[in-house]
Amino acid sequence: MIRTAVIGASGYTGAELLRLLSGHPELEGTIITSRQHAGKKLDEVFPHLSGFYNLTFTEPRYDEIKEAVDAAFVCLPHKSAMEAVATLSRRIPVVDLSADFRFQNIATYETWYTRHEYPDLLETAVYGLPEIHRDKIRDARIIANPGCYPTGVILGLYPLLKEKAIRTAGIIIDSKSGLSGAGRNPSLVTIFTEVHESVSPYSVGSHRHTPEIKERLSEIAREPVSVTFAPHLVPQNRGILTTIYAEPAGGHSADTILEIFCNSYKDEPFVRVLPAGRYPATGWVRGSNCIDIGVAAVPETKRIVIMTAIDNLVKGASGNAVQNMNVLFGIDEKTGLSLAPPFP
Amino acid sequence: MIRTAVIGASGYTGAELLRLLSGHPELEGTIITSRQHAGKKLDEVFPHLSGFYNLTFTEPRYDEIKEAVDAAFVCLPHKSAMEAVATLSRRIPVVDLSADFRFQNIATYETWYTRHEYPDLLETAVYGLPEIHRDKIRDARIIANPGCYPTGVILGLYPLLKEKAIRTAGIIIDSKSGLSGAGRNPSLVTIFTEVHESVSPYSVGSHRHTPEIKERLSEIAREPVSVTFAPHLVPQNRGILTTIYAEPAGGHSADTILEIFCNSYKDEPFVRVLPAGRYPATGWVRGSNCIDIGVAAVPETKRIVIMTAIDNLVKGASGNAVQNMNVLFGIDEKTGLSLAPPFP
Amino acid sequence: MIRTAVIGASGYTGAELLRLLSGHPELEGTIITSRQHAGKKLDEVFPHLSGFYNLTFTEPRYDEIKEAVDAAFVCLPHKSAMEAVATLSRRIPVVDLSADFRFQNIATYETWYTRHEYPDLLETAVYGLPEIHRDKIRDARIIANPGCYPTGVILGLYPLLKEKAIRTAGIIIDSKSGLSGAGRNPSLVTIFTEVHESVSPYSVGSHRHTPEIKERLSEIAREPVSVTFAPHLVPQNRGILTTIYAEPAGGHSADTILEIFCNSYKDEPFVRVLPAGRYPATGWVRGSNCIDIGVAAVPETKRIVIMTAIDNLVKGASGNAVQNMNVLFGIDEKTGLSLAPPFP
Amino acid sequence: MIRTAVIGASGYTGAELLRLLSGHPELEGTIITSRQHAGKKLDEVFPHLSGFYNLTFTEPRYDEIKEAVDAAFVCLPHKSAMEAVATLSRRIPVVDLSADFRFQNIATYETWYTRHEYPDLLETAVYGLPEIHRDKIRDARIIANPGCYPTGVILGLYPLLKEKAIRTAGIIIDSKSGLSGAGRNPSLVTIFTEVHESVSPYSVGSHRHTPEIKERLSEIAREPVSVTFAPHLVPQNRGILTTIYAEPAGGHSADTILEIFCNSYKDEPFVRVLPAGRYPATGWVRGSNCIDIGVAAVPETKRIVIMTAIDNLVKGASGNAVQNMNVLFGIDEKTGLSLAPPFP
Repeated sequence: MIRTAVIGASGYTGAELLRLLSGHPELEGTIITSRQHAGKKLDEVFPHLSGFYNLTFTEPRYDEIKEAVDAAFVCLPHKSAMEAVATLSRRIPVVDLSADFRFQNIATYETWYTRHEYPDLLETAVYGLPEIHRDKIRDARIIANPGCYPTGVILGLYPLLKEKAIRTAGIIIDSKSGLSGAGRNPSLVTIFTEVHESVSPYSVGSHRHTPEIKERLSEIAREPVSVTFAPHLVPQNRGILTTIYAEPAGGHSADTILEIFCNSYKDEPFVRVLPAGRYPATGWVRGSNCIDIGVAAVPETKRIVIMTAIDNLVKGASGNAVQNMNVLFGIDEKTGLSLAPPFP
Repeated sequence: MIRTAVIGASGYTGAELLRLLSGHPELEGTIITSRQHAGKKLDEVFPHLSGFYNLTFTEPRYDEIKEAVDAAFVCLPHKSAMEAVATLSRRIPVVDLSADFRFQNIATYETWYTRHEYPDLLETAVYGLPEIHRDKIRDARIIANPGCYPTGVILGLYPLLKEKAIRTAGIIIDSKSGLSGAGRNPSLVTIFTEVHESVSPYSVGSHRHTPEIKERLSEIAREPVSVTFAPHLVPQNRGILTTIYAEPAGGHSADTILEIFCNSYKDEPFVRVLPAGRYPATGWVRGSNCIDIGVAAVPETKRIVIMTAIDNLVKGASGNAVQNMNVLFGIDEKTGLSLAPPFP
Repeated sequence: MIRTAVIGASGYTGAELLRLLSGHPELEGTIITSRQHAGKKLDEVFPHLSGFYNLTFTEPRYDEIKEAVDAAFVCLPHKSAMEAVATLSRRIPVVDLSADFRFQNIATYETWYTRHEYPDLLETAVYGLPEIHRDKIRDARIIANPGCYPTGVILGLYPLLKEKAIRTAGIIIDSKSGLSGAGRNPSLVTIFTEVHESVSPYSVGSHRHTPEIKERLSEIAREPVSVTFAPHLVPQNRGILTTIYAEPAGGHSADTILEIFCNSYKDEPFVRVLPAGRYPATGWVRGSNCIDIGVAAVPETKRIVIMTAIDNLVKGASGNAVQNMNVLFGIDEKTGLSLAPPFP
Repeated sequence: MIRTAVIGASGYTGAELLRLLSGHPELEGTIITSRQHAGKKLDEVFPHLSGFYNLTFTEPRYDEIKEAVDAAFVCLPHKSAMEAVATLSRRIPVVDLSADFRFQNIATYETWYTRHEYPDLLETAVYGLPEIHRDKIRDARIIANPGCYPTGVILGLYPLLKEKAIRTAGIIIDSKSGLSGAGRNPSLVTIFTEVHESVSPYSVGSHRHTPEIKERLSEIAREPVSVTFAPHLVPQNRGILTTIYAEPAGGHSADTILEIFCNSYKDEPFVRVLPAGRYPATGWVRGSNCIDIGVAAVPETKRIVIMTAIDNLVKGASGNAVQNMNVLFGIDEKTGLSLAPPFP
């Protein structure tokens, strides 16, 4: 068994990692850290994991941890993650779920987040979307697991931008996310009664995932890509439905766009391209590492509408992190991720 | 008291009309019809209305009804509505909640719906959005109550198109609707377990409200307006959040766009234009006749994002119908519609 | 217009009072207080009330307030409420939504809550369930608005205990409440993701509403009544469904029990006794001041099951408070409370 | 691999079986039947299973099926199940999820359901609750998988009745179930808008699971047990929370009751007895085969409150069915059922 540590394991992505590792035959969670809960048993903080682990939260002593495990998942907020990644990666490979190592352009990171203390490491980090960066991930020491919104957006545009099947300007991205993306820290905007029976936009045009999306799409398109991005909260626990509006280039129709998707993703175990006329729903991917992609064309207004659905905690976070770790250790990529979604 | 009949009162818009009329000091519901439930007491079909009415569903005999009441609300599906409206309007004014009299262009109606049996009446019908057509409503005999999606879209674009503050091409409309818009007839796609914890797009680029939106926006803009419209279902009972992406014309910013909204709607009792930086949420308008409008600008991509929230059963249907009836009878427009939203 | 102050208006019961007062023709909210939000406009804290009021939160200066209004609603937590009620009631009548003046037995209050600073006032306070205490409320200066759970329980047992139709021992009360009862202060147990898709019991056998229920039921029965009370949280905003299991005394059946309910409540405007075979649902009373009551008999086990549904924020709190104020000022009891429930 | 057929695979229990089998290393689903959907691909009916199977629904030809597989799960409604079980069990072992073979007393079955065509088989069938009947299941040919409510009730009372720690009379059972228990056939009572934001009791004292509960509890207690059972619908997809009120016998307290549970279930892989003061929540078991059990004592009223939480589609149906099949084939009981619950 490959021993892993989950750093910052008291949030939802940490819990989801532990859930997935509980069924993984080759990776196991052996150390869990939390400054807030150090000394508590795992099941005091997460009763649903009772019986699946016999672990206690410890203080995050990275120097010791890096000697005790074979790899680490870092589930800390940005900035706190930086130091953990820097220390741990001196000896073991790290999959970092924060934003700290996602950017190629340090200036962009510092504009949207905070000062970066490890510019050298930033250069060596690999963006961890296996469907696009699989080869680099294999040899990486620091893997920056993508943001939840960027995952749904980038996989929904990757084949089209690569094939120049759509214009790089005027792309509109409208995402609808469940509440688990907001984390487990109580705040007025996430309490049940404020959210239930309500849909609301937030950070319109100014969400921190916008520069991440732009940088990666521009890399794929090999030219600057501009996007207008508006996230919304919808009253559900899990799932992001992203609706992307783009203008076809080169006379593409819904059919030829679908064909590009099918060809591009035909060997991908977690990408399900839906047949013409069928659209994704977050309910169909819930709890799984799948991303479902559907396409509609609106010939009258010359628009292609691409819709993607992911579970933000799985393909949008912890499932993708396990997939990255599988790639890194040369394990079959589906290992520990092959259970179908629990619908309904 | 002005006596009204509610034709086709066994659906959600009928029930909502009766709820609103239960608190209206000048309009009362005196006849309710339903082919399916004729002979049943109202509270057998709608237990929540028990104690508020002592009514029994009757067969829809329009010739008799038109002699017995002063006005009628028609809550039938399109096509069935046509005949009811034609017969009733010979003697009394009618607010029709179906699509049958919403179109100026009969060919558009017949392309998207069915053959129209009363083209003459179609010409005399008035589109019932009081904020725009108040003067015509006063003298109308047939008022076509707008569709739920069109209400949120048209009021979110009206001042901008009138002032030519945005381009008429490239408008993207992404709507998120609760389930009450799908009506009360059971079907696989509306049962709880299929919908809960799931967000899904449907009829992308092909929803019947698209031609209604286009016709009305083009009338306002006095030139053809093209829109790409994608509706989505979200797991809630009530509420439509519509996010509209448009390109400003004439150098407008979020501030000047907001100013246009404020000026245009300053005397409207049900339109609430939110201050800069605040966005609407369907939870804030639930159960009320309010429409909330917020604006964000994305200068980098030259886009204006307009967000509107309505309760689809109130401002998007029955509340707006009562507002129309108030205008028609010269009653203060807020009458029976002045209670604040029940949040949470 | 009768001017009222809402003390502690930044929680859900305060907001609900303001909603109900917005449609009340004789009572108006003129002062709103909140230590936390003093100086803020109402709609910054409660956007849904925008346009319905032009009020600003003020510091709670009770001496000034009691000169400026005709009556007060106190929506503070217990203990804080005590002083507000004491000061205000020197000059104006007060409806107190806290637990501070609900107990006849001061020792019981002090065991379950805290030291009581105003034992004299406690003696003069009237328990504000109009269906039972209407006459006393008329002349009261301090009205203790009942707890949300006790409201559903007491009205579900009052006629039966009065008529000695059930035994006073062995009563089991199982309540299911929405989240608005937990208030608006963020905490881990009320954030959306912890609650959605989950039902959970809490404070089983030890909830503070137990002694309130027992004291009032014993008063009605004129002998000690013992109850086992288990509250549960269910994933909805509003509504308490209470299921009560009791043993009939004197050979009663479901029919005769129903008859007792019908007779007892026949003149009550807000109590709806359902016909045999129909059970209540919180959805049917949502947003209204109604309480629905249904009865089932299980002859084989000699049990009567009484089920009641209320909206915890209306009949379980603010609606009942308005009803009390109506009684106090000799206004028709239904005033401002006559709108039907917004279903769905 | 052991080949299994899923008979009547178009409902939720069928889909859940296929989900669980998708991750099972020794059992596989190779035939799926559905009269309604024969000829359709699985993913047309259940898009969430796309990519996990390459199966097509077939007509239910039991004679052919029994030659083609090693075992069968029958997910048909009662009465239809009877014939399937009879034919299939001539050659292969069958786990039947219907009620048709759950009763020892044929008269009870016929009173509550319908005429039984195979009384001989009824005698040989084994009630499939492995925690109680493991030894018999090993040698059974027909295993009657328990009802969802009975599972939560029986496991919540088994050790106490066996040890005579509670009285056998006066037991009150109040269950709260999500909607997936109502199946996938559309009806007015299960559409989203009728259910969301509403809690409601149904079949109070007359639910068909009552005789199943009574028969099994009486068998355990070796004397007649009487129960009052009231099921409720709560607005969630999955999960049953059952609250049981019983009178302790022989001076038991919460502590000693807990001890009995801990001892009785200490080797059970799916039963989690919670420590004193902690109560179960359906959210903590969602998607898993776990049953969580908590206990509270109310000394003042001499009542013990036992609370159990299960996922009705897993431990309450398909997960338990897989567990039975594991026992039957001598596979480790946890196989295919060992993934932790996906919370939130």
